[in-house]
Amino acid sequence: MPKISEKGLKMPSSPVRKLVPYAEAAKARGVHIYQLNIGQPDIKTPEQAINAVKDTDMTVLAYSHSAGNQSYRDKLAVHYNKIGMNLTDENIIVSTGGSEALMFAMGSICDNGDEVIIPEPFYANYNGFATASGVTVKPISTTIENNFALPAISEFEKLITDKTKAILICNPGNPTGYLYTQEEMDQLTALVKKHDLFLLSDEVYREFAYDGRKHLSVMNITGLEEHAIMIDSVSKRYSMCGARIGCMVSKNKEVMATAMKFAQARLSPPTFAQIAAEAALETKQEYFDEVIGEYIERRDVLIDGLKKIDGVEVANPGGAFYCVAQLPVEDTDVFAQWMLENFELDGETIMVAPAAGFYSTPGMGKNQIRIAYVLEKESLEKAVRILDHALKAYKA
Amino acid sequence: MPKISEKGLKMPSSPVRKLVPYAEAAKARGVHIYQLNIGQPDIKTPEQAINAVKDTDMTVLAYSHSAGNQSYRDKLAVHYNKIGMNLTDENIIVSTGGSEALMFAMGSICDNGDEVIIPEPFYANYNGFATASGVTVKPISTTIENNFALPAISEFEKLITDKTKAILICNPGNPTGYLYTQEEMDQLTALVKKHDLFLLSDEVYREFAYDGRKHLSVMNITGLEEHAIMIDSVSKRYSMCGARIGCMVSKNKEVMATAMKFAQARLSPPTFAQIAAEAALETKQEYFDEVIGEYIERRDVLIDGLKKIDGVEVANPGGAFYCVAQLPVEDTDVFAQWMLENFELDGETIMVAPAAGFYSTPGMGKNQIRIAYVLEKESLEKAVRILDHALKAYKA
Repeated sequence: MPKISEKGLKMPSSPVRKLVPYAEAAKARGVHIYQLNIGQPDIKTPEQAINAVKDTDMTVLAYSHSAGNQSYRDKLAVHYNKIGMNLTDENIIVSTGGSEALMFAMGSICDNGDEVIIPEPFYANYNGFATASGVTVKPISTTIENNFALPAISEFEKLITDKTKAILICNPGNPTGYLYTQEEMDQLTALVKKHDLFLLSDEVYREFAYDGRKHLSVMNITGLEEHAIMIDSVSKRYSMCGARIGCMVSKNKEVMATAMKFAQARLSPPTFAQIAAEAALETKQEYFDEVIGEYIERRDVLIDGLKKIDGVEVANPGGAFYCVAQLPVEDTDVFAQWMLENFELDGETIMVAPAAGFYSTPGMGKNQIRIAYVLEKESLEKAVRILDHALKAYKA
Repeated sequence: MPKISEKGLKMPSSPVRKLVPYAEAAKARGVHIYQLNIGQPDIKTPEQAINAVKDTDMTVLAYSHSAGNQSYRDKLAVHYNKIGMNLTDENIIVSTGGSEALMFAMGSICDNGDEVIIPEPFYANYNGFATASGVTVKPISTTIENNFALPAISEFEKLITDKTKAILICNPGNPTGYLYTQEEMDQLTALVKKHDLFLLSDEVYREFAYDGRKHLSVMNITGLEEHAIMIDSVSKRYSMCGARIGCMVSKNKEVMATAMKFAQARLSPPTFAQIAAEAALETKQEYFDEVIGEYIERRDVLIDGLKKIDGVEVANPGGAFYCVAQLPVEDTDVFAQWMLENFELDGETIMVAPAAGFYSTPGMGKNQIRIAYVLEKESLEKAVRILDHALKAYKA
């Protein structure tokens, strides 16, 4: 029998999916589950995005340009320039989700065995993209006590070798909700310039910055033009995760020319979804004001609730729609599964993502969970109550 | 300045795109161009596929299952079982185009430096996917004199090393149009079983088998269950290239479980396009009869015309909608560009794909071109006439 690859064996399983069979069994028993394990918002997609597709008069569903439709790239440049990024269509390659943009970026700058430094906990699929690309992740730990802020630059410098090609950040962070400060961005800028590294910045949650704080993009940093690569996506911004439209953005011409070869090999991003994404650019500020207001209320309900539970610690997310909470249990893999298999409160339970899968260092995050606050406040209140009762029952 | 990767430098440019700037300049001069360089058919997409998307009542454009919508996979299994493949939904992962299916397959079975044997000329993007995956392509040449039939199995055996993981075929072939015979499939089956290799079969042109001949799928071969991986796509079948929906199919459970980890990392295939692809499965046989009748007429017009041109040799395509022609010129890269830059007949010229890009062996195919017969007969007749005149003018 022919053998699968070592790479395939090493590919991590998704930490947010491994509980799915237990959730399905619970549903089959009639238990209602509050699903807080994945970042699939319940927020409505802007109507004009879906309507643009419904109104199409196309008769041949044809390939688009490999970099994405010209009209979409032109409008994207205008969109980004409103926040001072100073881009043209040539700085943008439209991708199949942020996922593909990150694969293009990794392929363009990393060879097999090269290293990328990522503050952990980080978006779990970075591990998958790195493994698929033959890239080694060098994690640098951040802590819940420090609200998951950027580690000291000296810690980064300890990890830099001649194999190091880039630093990858997610800002605001999934799973931490951490929003980088001006000082932190300045430090990162100096670091990548000093060591001739790329700074990959996953900014798909850019709009979700709370408490009056401004999101700081790598594309706005003067002097970082050759180093900065931005990963973006329409998934969370317009609650259109199923579109699978993102983009890779850089002012480094060599990087973009190289990424374009990866883009041409796979022909084009999806045509219907590009129509929706282009129309989504017309979304009014009121939509975002309402959505962001909603997320802030949800965050406050969730964080306040979690803080009241005995033995639970939680960081203060300044953006995105996730939080990492530390629980008074030994292994949240076991506890999260137990909540689905053995616990219910008035016929209900919760599904959360054990946080170990968001760390690359073995043993880290074993007593933490990630909660996505993608459900309405009433559901989050109930979810907190369920967690409180579950922890008590689990101890007993 | 940070450096791009060796992999990025090695990524091939698309051979069907490099003439685009010259075509654009010709268009700007008012020259009409018959575009025979890419496989974008002019055939209409089945109406019910586009209408299914237009009729959607979704309000949140959400992620689908990472393996694709359950309803689509169930119907795909039924579709494939009509042609005797004996599949369940668990044998199918829906992908973003056939491209992604091939990337999943390569990642699941090949490590950096592993080898895949491919009869050349082959679909040029196989080079790109191989480079992106760190895989080395071992080409095995086929010839126009022999109609691009499968080389002797002894030639394959000469190339097999302990790094060889798979043989990749495209059936019917792009760019050759070659349709493998029962004897050839039997030989390949014995070969991969003897050497414990995978047999990757790109069957995206399956329906386009002409002259009463039947397409032979690797999924129908008894005893090949652990070896066979099929790559499929809706792009050509329903003229919906822009959907970006394909699938990877195998009965090897370990392969599918591994590919699923790659699928989970990128979350899901596009949601709108899956709706269209699911509806496309209802396409009536009359649609295919009409389309295939059309392609056969086009092929005959094209091949007959090419054979009448002095010094032109052409193979007889038994399927797909491409042919490879050998021209009495030294370098078709130069000639194809010349036709766009310096030639016109009554204000018209043609754009073809120089075939060297479809070979992996340096120097091969330099006097060949690929023609995609994706335009109506009248256009093909004119294109042949233009080629005839252009060759005469080029010689003079």
